[in-house]
Parts: sequence; structure tokens; C-alpha cells
Amino acid sequence: MSKEIGITTKKTEDLSEWYTQVVTKAELVDYSPVKGFIVLRPYGYSIWESIKEYLDSRLKASGHSNAYFPLLIPESFLKKEAEHFTGFTPEVFWVTHAGENKLSERLAIRPTSETIINDAYSKWVRSWRDLPLLINVWNSVLRAEITATRPFLRTTEFLWQEGHTVHATKEDADQEVMMILGFYRDLIEQQLAVPVLTGYKSEREKFVGAMYTTTLEAMMPDGRAIQMGTSHNLGQNFSKPFEIKYLGKDEQSHYAWTTSWGVSWRLLSALIMLHGDDRGLVVPPQIAPIQIVIVPIHFKDRNKQGINEKISDVTETLKNSSFRVHLDDREQYTPGWKFNEWELKGIPLRIEVGPRDVERKQVTIVRRNDLQKLSINDHELVQEVRRNLQLIQNGLFERASAALKSSIRKADNYEEFKRIIETDGGFVRACWCGSSDCEDAIKAEIGATIRTLPFQDEATFAACVKCGKPSKAVGYFARSY
Amino acid sequence: MSKEIGITTKKTEDLSEWYTQVVTKAELVDYSPVKGFIVLRPYGYSIWESIKEYLDSRLKASGHSNAYFPLLIPESFLKKEAEHFTGFTPEVFWVTHAGENKLSERLAIRPTSETIINDAYSKWVRSWRDLPLLINVWNSVLRAEITATRPFLRTTEFLWQEGHTVHATKEDADQEVMMILGFYRDLIEQQLAVPVLTGYKSEREKFVGAMYTTTLEAMMPDGRAIQMGTSHNLGQNFSKPFEIKYLGKDEQSHYAWTTSWGVSWRLLSALIMLHGDDRGLVVPPQIAPIQIVIVPIHFKDRNKQGINEKISDVTETLKNSSFRVHLDDREQYTPGWKFNEWELKGIPLRIEVGPRDVERKQVTIVRRNDLQKLSINDHELVQEVRRNLQLIQNGLFERASAALKSSIRKADNYEEFKRIIETDGGFVRACWCGSSDCEDAIKAEIGATIRTLPFQDEATFAACVKCGKPSKAVGYFARSY
Repeated sequence: MSKEIGITTKKTEDLSEWYTQVVTKAELVDYSPVKGFIVLRPYGYSIWESIKEYLDSRLKASGHSNAYFPLLIPESFLKKEAEHFTGFTPEVFWVTHAGENKLSERLAIRPTSETIINDAYSKWVRSWRDLPLLINVWNSVLRAEITATRPFLRTTEFLWQEGHTVHATKEDADQEVMMILGFYRDLIEQQLAVPVLTGYKSEREKFVGAMYTTTLEAMMPDGRAIQMGTSHNLGQNFSKPFEIKYLGKDEQSHYAWTTSWGVSWRLLSALIMLHGDDRGLVVPPQIAPIQIVIVPIHFKDRNKQGINEKISDVTETLKNSSFRVHLDDREQYTPGWKFNEWELKGIPLRIEVGPRDVERKQVTIVRRNDLQKLSINDHELVQEVRRNLQLIQNGLFERASAALKSSIRKADNYEEFKRIIETDGGFVRACWCGSSDCEDAIKAEIGATIRTLPFQDEATFAACVKCGKPSKAVGYFARSY
Repeated sequence: MSKEIGITTKKTEDLSEWYTQVVTKAELVDYSPVKGFIVLRPYGYSIWESIKEYLDSRLKASGHSNAYFPLLIPESFLKKEAEHFTGFTPEVFWVTHAGENKLSERLAIRPTSETIINDAYSKWVRSWRDLPLLINVWNSVLRAEITATRPFLRTTEFLWQEGHTVHATKEDADQEVMMILGFYRDLIEQQLAVPVLTGYKSEREKFVGAMYTTTLEAMMPDGRAIQMGTSHNLGQNFSKPFEIKYLGKDEQSHYAWTTSWGVSWRLLSALIMLHGDDRGLVVPPQIAPIQIVIVPIHFKDRNKQGINEKISDVTETLKNSSFRVHLDDREQYTPGWKFNEWELKGIPLRIEVGPRDVERKQVTIVRRNDLQKLSINDHELVQEVRRNLQLIQNGLFERASAALKSSIRKADNYEEFKRIIETDGGFVRACWCGSSDCEDAIKAEIGATIRTLPFQDEATFAACVKCGKPSKAVGYFARSY
């Protein structure tokens, strides 16, 4: 593989340039002619499909159904929830013409679908028998990005899922919000091997229109946080303007409680930055569209037939054990070229079969995460492959967990707080008085925000790290993507 | 079930009103506040998911991958293939503003993605080693509908898949076009139980920008045809303006050949109109999200426990045999209410378990298509359920095939042609001179078009049904949706 094809920048030297090279050279994405938009190429899409499949089955098993709602939303709908409208207006793409005809009311391309979905719900919900109403949508949304684009992390259009549910009581809505947050945590930690902090958002940082927002936050190697997903209790903020009411068992009419929640292809950005290395991507086995690549190693014609028979046996055996396997028997490329390509794409395990492997009734495996090379006896193939995939999955998560843990620092005063954020980054655990003014000042002065307020109140009687007044909560502050 | 909930119009009396009632009352769709748009509700979406799953697995097994391309296309891209642009311009939604900012170039919401995808392909295709490039996209597209909206049949936004492939030679592209048409035929005939005619479109009716278009056409009970899907060989019409070139094994640069093909949620409209009856939908078992609904029949407290134990046994047994089963044990509804609801939704098979069924070690089944009621011995449950589902699937297809066959009539002169189209409708098989003028005249005078020209030339020396000149082909003409 030529230098041009491989990654030419070290991850530790220039994370941003390294990231750009990885996402394009591993063929996850390509840039689009329109600024802010990207193409999700087949390999990138296949990872997204793995994510979808996992989450979709969790959602269906817990009684959620998929549906589809229109792309275009009348301006008057967006305006129904004032805070929501103000929050999204600067980012909305407006459609003004159909063919040659000017539209009577301009239409927004959905930046999120609360308004159009809650309008439909007001027709569908009549009685307590219709509740809970649990619907999820897989679609794309558009929010104009004025700053620089980074694939998966900051793009104008992104793929995501948005869940929207209706409940009879606040408690039911609370439970839904937390159940979904649990699904997200399982997806992110167990599948993507990305450890997260969870908790509430502050009033300043919550979703526009929500009663409260819960979040999952990951830490990147450059000390900046990524918001991985959010789950909101919308209270009655949407059910009132949209008139979502139900007749209770008490024969009275009640406003319902609604929730919404989403994760997007942004999940991929954390996976890439946390696990990747100077050779390219490292995809955790649980989510990898290809878990194992098999490469024949021919030395001239030495036992060519034996090698070919063995690789098809090995491929069959592993497929029958439900591993996701790709046999790379292309003749126009050398083994070395293939190794580089599949390392760039982050396939967790490589199996090589050469003449000596055939003689010794073994295969050679190479783990992508630590590049360890091992020989495995043929009769232990399935169990050893399984064990090594598990080792990779655990290894990735443990390394990332240790990094997350060591990134969390405590600051007792503003000088210390500022120094940590400006030198090492990471999460700073600090006391906070509860006022948005302090958040605003910290954001303006050092660019950090409260990423999350822990669910379990880490009660403290210390002073607010900014203003010195008595603190109401402990916050995890960081700069973020 | 009250009159209001059930279908109040007979299918034979007013197909259009019947259709509207079925799609809304069976909760497949709801109307959206914006004219021309619909909401695909969970039950409708689940049928769409069945269709997706089948087709997606056929496409993947034949080497196709999914990807995602941007929603918005620069106007300059659309203009690159002149015929394509002219064809779509009147239907395109234009985005002119992002937030408060006017865009420097207006952007089209994709009416189809040939232009933006072929632009990407021009970067990805370098050598014969990169071919064929086989990509499919599941997304939604927008084409402004100026006439009346009918759910699934004629909507401004619709869900579909669009496949886009690149090949080294015309022959490779031809083969792709026909392979995809075969997948579509299997989907439509074997899964949806909708028989079709296949063949070429005329120059007048082909896809704008295509070299040639192949099509699948179904016939509805009111004598009008529905185009179920199309597969196009785009020739080099897109590879030339978009510069998709590859270095051949001959070390020379060649323009590639491209194809595109798609089916949309329109497939659902044919399934509904062909199989439905005065009670509502009838969903073919192969594609039914729920194949079997199980309803306990309690007579006061007579052996309530025995019934409940038996229905959970039956449910388990059928689920373990991979049937898609729903147990309706809601206590707030009567069995009669449930029967009506599930008949409206078209569940192929109903299983009832009452006290007598428990005593006699049997269950009662009712087939949705012919409403036949049968008793089945417990020990034959699985095989009899399988046999009856197969009977329903075959029964639907055979009835529809007979109807298709009898809808095809031959016309030797224009008077006869006109009389058939204007009275019975259906397909008229007639000779045609090959000129668009005759097609235009027929369209203007009686609203019929050539739906398809058979692949196997049904050679004839008769005169063109319109102009009397020597005929070049036999066409199947019809009015269409």
C-alpha cells in the first residue's frame, strides 16, 4: 500500500487531520458538493446498519414500532412551541417553491419532528387505552452548520433515529426516558465499547422545549467531550399546544406527557477517535460488519491447492458458527497490500493461512487492536476465534474506561478549573451554584460547559467554582465537540 | 365494531372511496397537514419493513451494498443531463434559505439521485478492478404532485429504494437490469401475490435520461394499470456528462455504463386494491407482519384457565415454528370486536380457542381470504397452519392471475380498442407502428398509454391500431394510475 493510501499523520500529533484521513481513506464517507453534507459510503453504512439493527431490536422488544412522518413541516407548526421554534429557526432550511410555483406557506425541512409528530398524535390518542403510544423513526434531519464540517460529528444533514412517545402520567414518561437511556448505554458501552458518563443536562443545555434532558457523554483523546445521545421528558410542553388529550379511567380529560430521544451517526465519531490508531480504524467486534478477514498466503505454488481448500473450510466453519467473515482471495493484490487495507478498515481479526499453517494443522491469527500474532490449532478454531474477539471487545472497552476515569479531575477553585481545561482538557468535576450566569461566564471565558449533572446527587457543601456562592450541585464540565 | 370504524363502502361500488377508507381505518396511513404528504403509521410501516427485508436480502446476496447520499442537490448538477433536468424540473422542491441566509445556489430536494450519485461515482471508479459498483439506497424522494393525492399511489413524498450501478460494458449493464427486474418480479408475484406483465417501455414512456426502461405492470379491479417498478439501462447518458471513466485491462480509458432501478411504497397500493374486500385489507401471508392472530373465546368463566393455558401453548408452539403470531388477550374488547378489527387489518389467519376447543383438543381457524372456518386437531397444529397459510398465499395469487389474464383483450381496430378501454378497461393488446405521434393521439383521445412492450417480440404483420401503417411491435395499452 502506498503512503497515499495509508494514513500519513500520527493520531497523537494531529487528531483532526488523522480523523479526516481515517474516515475518507477507510471509505466510510466522502464529501458532497454541497458544504456541510457528506456521503455515507457502503462500509460506513454497514456499520450504521449494525447499530440500527441492535437498537431496533431492543426498541421492538420493548413495544416500540417504527413509522415515517413527512420531511416538510409548515412554519406555523414549528411556531406552536415557542422555545422550540426559537431554538431551531437559525438552523432551518426553508422550501419556498415547488417547480415554478411559490408556496403559500414556506415549509421547513425537519430539523427534528416533535411538531409534526405531536400533531398526528393529537388525532390518534383518545383514551387511556391508546397509551402508551411508542413510536420510533429512522430518518435524516437537516440543521444548517455554520462552522466547519466534520464527518459524523458536525454535518448539516445527519442520519439518526428519533423516538416519540405519549404517556398517561409524568411517572410513565420518566420511566420511558430512563429505559431508553439504558438502551443507549448498552449500545454505546457494550456494542461500541465507548464508556460514558450519564446524567441530566442543566437548564441551559437541555433540549429546547424539554422539561428535562438526560444525556450520555464520552471523552475523546484530545480532552473534548462528545454528546452521544439524549433522552428527554417533554413534560406537557408539547401536549398542551398540540392538544394531546386522553380520556382517563376516571372519565376525565387529561393532557398527556410526551418524551423524545435520539442517537445519530455521531456515535461513529467517538468509536473512530477512541479506538483508532496510526494504521486506521479499529472496529469493536460486536458492531463490526466484518469481524474476521481471511487471507491466503501463497509462496509461489507451494501447496496452493491445500491452502485454498483450507481457507474455504475455515470460512465455512466460521460462517456456520455465525461469525461475520470475509474471504479476501483477490489474486491481483499481495497479502501485504491486503493486510494494510483491512487494518485501515479496522477488521478486528485477521486469519492467515500459508503452507506452514496447512502442514502444522493450524491457522495464524492477528488481533487488530494490539497486533498480537498467534497460532491456533485447527481443532480449537471456533473457540479460539470467539475468545479472541471477546478479548478485543473487552480490551477496547477497558482501555477506554481507564482513559475516561483518568480524564476526570476535581477542581476546588476557578484557577485550577481553568488550568485543567486549558492544558489537559477532560472532565472537570466542580461545584456549581445552579445559575445560568455562571455557566455563561465559564463558556465565554474558557469554552467549557456542564456536560452532565449526575443522577445521584453528589452532594457537597463547597462553594460554586465560579462565583463562590453555596453550591447546589456537582457538575461535570468540559469543552466539547 | 361500530359502522364508523368498519368499512362503509362496498369495493365494487366505489373503489376510490373504499380504498381511502381501508388505508385510513386499517391504520396504514394518516393524512399530513401539507397537501400531498402522508404519514406512514406503524402498521403500514411494518408491511413496508417486510418488503424491505425481502428485497434487501436479495440485493445483498447478489453483491449490492447500501449507502446514503445527500438530500439536497445543487441545481447545476440536475442540469448536467439535459433530458433528465427537463423531465424533473416542474416537480422539484427548491430550498432557497438556510435560517435567515439566502443560499448562493438554490438546492433541489432529490426527486431521484442519479445526478448526485453519478458525481460521487466519478471519483470512486478508476479501474476495471472497481467494477461492477453495486449500490442501493433506501430513502424518500419528493416530486410535487399537482393532481389529487392518493396514499401510496400518488403522493409528493414517497419511500422507495433506488439502486445505482456502474459496469464496464453494455452487456454487463443489460444483465444487471434484467437481474433486478427478476428480483422485483419475485417480490411482487411471490411475496405480494400480485401478478404482473413485464417488458420494455416505449421511448415516450421511458425514464428521462435512460437508454431503455424495463417495467412491471399490474392490473387493478377498475381496469387501470399500476406501474409497480422499473429498471433502467442508462447507457452512457450519465457516465459522459459526469465523467465516469475507468482504465480497462487494455490500459485504455473507457466511459462506463450505468443502471438505475427502483420500487416504492406504491407496491402497497396494488396489494390493497387487488386483495382487499368489503371487510378491509387482506395481506398475503408471505409479507404479513402478523400472519396469525390468536383470540381466546371466553364464555363467562367456563374453563377460563384451560383456555388461557392453551392459548399460551399455541402461541409458543407457533412462534417456535417461526410464524409471526400476535396474541390478542385484551380484556376490554369482545371477541367479535377483535374479529372485525383483525379482519379490517387483513391478518391472514385467525385462531380461536374456546371451551369446546379445549375439550376436543382442537383449535378453530378462520382464513381471511375466503372466511372459511375449520377445526384443527392439536397434534396437527403446525402443519395445518403452514398448509392453510400456503393455501391463502396461492389462493390470492391464483385469483389475481385469473383476473389479470381475463383483463387482457386484443383489438384489431381503433373502434374496438376505444370501446374496450372506455367500457371494461384492462390491457388492450394491439399492433403499433412505433411512432410517438400515435401514442400521443391515443393518450389525448382515450387516456391510454403503452404500459409495456413484451420482451419476446410478439411479431405481427397487422396494421397499427391507430394509423393503419405497418406495425413494428405489439403493445399492451391501458389507462393507468
